[in-house]
Order: sequence, then structure tokens, then C-alpha cells
Amino acid sequence: MRNIARLLPMRTTPGEVIVDAAVAMRDGKVAWLGPDGDLPAKFSDSDELDANGAVAIPGLVDPHTHLVWAGNRREELVARLAGESYDGGGIQTTVDATRAATDDDLLEAAIDRGRRMLANGTTTVEIKTGYGLTPKDELRCLDVIARLRDTLPLEVESTYLGAHVVPAGRDRAEYVQEVIETLPAAVARGAQWVDVFCDEGVFTIDETRAILAAASRHGLGTRLHAEEIAHTGAADLAAELGCASADHLEHVTPEGAKAMAEAGVVGVLLPTVTLSLRTFAFGQYPILRDAGVTLALSTDCNPGTSWCDSMPFVVQLACLVYGMSVDDALWAATRGGAAALRRDDIGKLDLGMRADLAVLAVDHEADLVAHLGTASSAATVVGGQVWEGPTRERGL
Amino acid sequence: MRNIARLLPMRTTPGEVIVDAAVAMRDGKVAWLGPDGDLPAKFSDSDELDANGAVAIPGLVDPHTHLVWAGNRREELVARLAGESYDGGGIQTTVDATRAATDDDLLEAAIDRGRRMLANGTTTVEIKTGYGLTPKDELRCLDVIARLRDTLPLEVESTYLGAHVVPAGRDRAEYVQEVIETLPAAVARGAQWVDVFCDEGVFTIDETRAILAAASRHGLGTRLHAEEIAHTGAADLAAELGCASADHLEHVTPEGAKAMAEAGVVGVLLPTVTLSLRTFAFGQYPILRDAGVTLALSTDCNPGTSWCDSMPFVVQLACLVYGMSVDDALWAATRGGAAALRRDDIGKLDLGMRADLAVLAVDHEADLVAHLGTASSAATVVGGQVWEGPTRERGL
Repeated sequence: MRNIARLLPMRTTPGEVIVDAAVAMRDGKVAWLGPDGDLPAKFSDSDELDANGAVAIPGLVDPHTHLVWAGNRREELVARLAGESYDGGGIQTTVDATRAATDDDLLEAAIDRGRRMLANGTTTVEIKTGYGLTPKDELRCLDVIARLRDTLPLEVESTYLGAHVVPAGRDRAEYVQEVIETLPAAVARGAQWVDVFCDEGVFTIDETRAILAAASRHGLGTRLHAEEIAHTGAADLAAELGCASADHLEHVTPEGAKAMAEAGVVGVLLPTVTLSLRTFAFGQYPILRDAGVTLALSTDCNPGTSWCDSMPFVVQLACLVYGMSVDDALWAATRGGAAALRRDDIGKLDLGMRADLAVLAVDHEADLVAHLGTASSAATVVGGQVWEGPTRERGL
Repeated sequence: MRNIARLLPMRTTPGEVIVDAAVAMRDGKVAWLGPDGDLPAKFSDSDELDANGAVAIPGLVDPHTHLVWAGNRREELVARLAGESYDGGGIQTTVDATRAATDDDLLEAAIDRGRRMLANGTTTVEIKTGYGLTPKDELRCLDVIARLRDTLPLEVESTYLGAHVVPAGRDRAEYVQEVIETLPAAVARGAQWVDVFCDEGVFTIDETRAILAAASRHGLGTRLHAEEIAHTGAADLAAELGCASADHLEHVTPEGAKAMAEAGVVGVLLPTVTLSLRTFAFGQYPILRDAGVTLALSTDCNPGTSWCDSMPFVVQLACLVYGMSVDDALWAATRGGAAALRRDDIGKLDLGMRADLAVLAVDHEADLVAHLGTASSAATVVGGQVWEGPTRERGL
């Protein structure tokens, strides 16, 4: 790719920039990058892609999504705007719709969301189950995730989130046991990770510890929904168990953040959720930053609290609500996400890395934040190929 | 236009909906609207436009923009994200760049912004001067606004904002006098409105009163930047002088709101500015609502505090930060904007009104808010014609 006005490779530090840059790609990987004038002659085929003077960064990494669902939760949104409190009970609405949907319907809806993500510059996405909540329906959702991976050029990380909520009418101890007993089947269906919604009114620290310990025995990586609704010590638990990430963290303490930093647990921030829930609780950012926690950003794409498929919007919002610098936010949306997924082949542009790029329709990366409400992805390169999928706009 | 799943005409009350609707247009005006099955045979040519099951509303009205500028204010944004305070001094940066730009450069940039607005469903836009701040440069900007009106199918309202800030190096009394003396020339260049930034550190109540009184003598409508930085009584002044609108209003008091309501002054809310300035001051909404003030929403499109050309994003943000209902926000973005501009031919769809429609790429208007960070305009109809301009995305 030639004619990149500003290339932010995310190799060394946030804010590293190569001006007037080129990237050469071979076999889906980065074969060369540097100032355009230095491009070796053997990479002259790099002319085929012209960035038109845009800004290019590594493909965006979205490490926390619930992409497989049916139905919608409009009524919950309307209630929330009317000032009614949100207690998490809305998940069951989506569970009912998801159980009632066919596999093909679930896949079609997930593909539509995945295409929008690709159009918005995302090239890697973690996808959780969690709207099935029976062994059969959870495994169906894992199958949908696997089929999505085969259908779209997205890099997909598959997460079993049977422990999203105790489903209506179930005994909690029995349900926790069922989640644990489903782990081998989840592995067989392609799950790479286990996540638990460890929070007040959802799963306790002890229940979470039991599920994640079993997950580790089955070779699964672990991650947590942590400290979103209340401070429970979930961040400390994530550190104790060596989770790859702890996500949300609105109620994290400095001690929990310190434990995360020491254990190498990535903190995944989800600013759209805070906006959507209207809690305006943004204080976890300075706590995590000051503790030295590696941070990632994510859409939390889900039907209830964050129907969002735009990582550029998440970056914009993170800067505005947390006061993150543009450089730090872009690092979190690429390198941070890769760290949250323990991937070392994505999230930066360097020799041998996956040739995944987000080309941003801005003259300068700061405009990604300054141009409010505008999705700024001009093109997405995934595995060295330009994503040619449909744009999200419907026309007359 | 046929196949409108939900048509929100904004004729009677927020939330009025015609399901499975059609709109017939003749000579740029609405000739019929109602349930599709009732469409009279003589309007069978309405088939030419198919909304594809989308939601349609009146064309969005953006009653407060500073669309004519040169340069950018990236450094100010970066400083703000680093926690430095914003004092309004950044306007001079844009003044310097605007004075240095040619008329054609100013027009080209404004046209680009206007096209983005059209693509986002806006069909009427108020545009202020205010980055010239000499008689010559202010009148140049009025000329650019007039040329923009001739170039794009947008309905344009032209506002002289010589009193945006006291320019660097000028005596304030002399400058106020110069603004007043420039009024006849502004009228000759097409200005319909005068606006003053009446706030702490900008123009005082007395200065504002003098400018607006002179404006009224010259037949110009009046409007105010009011109560943004501090409470100054500008809302009461707007009521006293019968301004069409008072805009921003972060520091309005219940008494000021009551005066506005009684005088019929529309309150224009600019939520992107609050987000961009990171003040998180959203309390004016319930004060204005409870006082019965007619509300409008606007982008405040400007390079320093709200580079935004998307009224759908403003609607989304208004719901989330103020807790406005979707119905009320859409009303404010159409009927409210029309009221702020004292226009009775726009902002609603009814017989004889301008055939300006925003077709939204959603199944239900609530999704305009629920689908976070997504610009939801599918198509824009302006004066009965589909806007065929370029989309805002740059491709490879």
C-alpha cells in the first residue's frame, strides 16, 4: 500500500508515526514497511493499493463482544431514557429470542454485524456466547461463531460465556455445575476462552473461581466481566487466576488495579456501555492508567447495553469521556486488544505480522476524535486483501 | 415515496407515526401523505422512490452552525484531552486561518461540510459568520454562505456573527461599534439573522443589547449564544428582546428558562459541544423542559468545539446524555429547529410543506439511538429530489 500520509505501526510506543509511508504485503503478512521513498523495487506491486493520503493503523482489535443474538431490546432503551433503572434482567429477553431463533438466523444476523465491523476497520473480534444458557443453546452459539469464522475474513476468538447470568427458573448451584460440565463440549465446538459475568447479582467470586478453575483444567483461556455493577473483588480474582483480561471495571479499586498490573491482566474499557446506561462513571480510567494496567478498548457489541459495531466510535468516545490521548486510545484499540487476546501476530504492523490494516478517512489521527459522530474507516485490509464487503448504508 | 415502514410526520405531537406509509410530492412540496394503501391513483408516480422499509422523518433542521472556516484546531483538542482548560481563545486561531484563505477555498470547504450534512439527512442549515471579524472578512463569509446556498440544495439561513469574540488587538467598544456599523452591509450580503456570543469573557449583556437592538432596526432576526460559559442573564435578555433562539444554555436558571418560554424563545441544545469540552454539564435539559421551552437540537458545527455534520448523531447523543426520549429528540431536530429559525414550511411533513425527508436506515426510530456511533441516514430527499451527492467515505 502506497500513499499513506501517516502510518501508525504500534511497534514501539503510542504515537510512533511514519509519514509518507508504504506497506508491502506477502502471503497475508507484512513484508516491509517504512518511508515510501525507501520501498524496495521488489515490492513495486505495492502500488496496487493506494491509501489516498489517509492515515493507516493496524486492523482494530475488538476483544469483548456478544455478537450472536436474536431479537432487540428497544423497549429497555426507551425505559432507560425515561429514567427507569437497569438491573441486568434484560438479558433474559435476548435469551428467549436467541433460543427461539434458528442457527441460520443467528448466523445471518451475526454475519451482518461482522460485516459492519469489517467496514469499520475491525479485523479481529472476540465473540462470546451467553444468550443460550442451556448446554444445547450455548453449543449452538459456539457453532455459529465457528461458522462466522469460516464465512468472514475476520480473525475470530471464540468464548464460552455460559455464566452470563443464572437463567430464569434455574437453581444457581445446579446451573454453575452445568456450566462446568459443559466445558468439554465447548472445547470440542471451538471455544478458546471462558468468561464469567462476576458481579453483584450475577455470579459470585466463589462461583467464578470454580468455573474458571475448571476452564483452566480444560486448557481454556480465561477472562472476566469484572467490577461493572459493584466492587466485588473480581479484579483481584482475575489477577489471582491469571486471566487474560478483566472487562468493564467501573468500580475497580486502586488495589485491584495494582493486582491486575502485577499479574499482567489487561483492562478492557467499554465506554459505550457507560454512555448507554447513562451512569457517566468514567473514573476507572485514571485508576487503571496510574496503576500501569495495559488497557484495551472494545465495543461490547450486544443488544441491551451497547449495540455498537464501530471501534472508531469507541476510540472517539474513549478520548472524550476518559480524557485518553488519541495515541493511547489507538494503542488500546490495537496493541491493547491483541494483549487482551494474548495474540502476538496482530495489533501492530511489523515484519511477519498479519497484514491487517484499518485505513482511516482522516488527514490526521486526531481527526478521528475531533470529527464527532463520524465513522472514519475508509477501507480495511485483512490478511493482505482489501475487504470489499457491502457498506452499511441502505440506499433508496 | 412508497414502502416507508414508519413515517413520523411531526404534524401534531412527538411520536405521531403512520405505519406502512407513502408520501406523494409535487413541485417540491408534499402533495399527499398517509397509509400506503390509501394512496390516490393520481400519485402513482410515487413508486419512483422506494424507502425499502425504512423510517422517514422530515428533513433534519440544523439551526446553529459555523460552517465557514479554514484550518483546523487539532492542537486544541489534544490539549483538552490532556486536561488543559478551554477558555474560548482558540477562536482566534480559526480567525487567522479564515482571513488568510481565499473565498474559493472557504467555499470549497463549506461545500464539503454541507454535502456531508445532506448525506446525513439535514435539509436546512443555519450558517453563521464569525471567523472573519473585520468588516471585509465578515462580508466575505456572508458571500460564501450565499454562494453555498446557490450551490447545494440545502435550505440555508444566513447569520451575521461579527460579535463572535472581540478580535485580538481590538478595543472592545470600538469593535462593538464596528459590528453595528457593518449591519447594513451584512443585510445587503444576504444576512437574515444576527447572533452575539453573549457570555462571560465574550460580549456583555449591555454590548449584546446594543448590537441586537441595532439589528432589529435593520430588519434582521436575532438569536444568541447564551449561558454557555457562565450564568450571565443572557437567556432573560433573549426573552426581553424577542430573540428567535437562545443557544447552549448550560448555565440557564429556572427563571431564565421561564422567561424564554413566556417569550417564545426556542432553546437550542448542542450536546456534542458538552461532550467535546468534557464538562459533562447536561442539567439545562430538565430545566428547559420543565419550564415548557420549545427545544431544538443542533450540531454547532465548528472547528474548535464541535466538528460535527451529523444531526442523527446529535439526536443519539441528546437521548443518551440528557435522557430525552427518542420522540422528543426527533421533534427537536425537526419541528424544534424550524421554530428556532421561525420557518413554518419545514420541520414537518404535511400538505404544502417542503418535500424534505430524511430516510433513516433503521427498522424503528429507537434504533437511531440504540445503534451507537452509527450514522443512520439512508437517503435524503430535498425539495422532492433525492440527494445524489457523494457519500463521506473515502475508498481505496
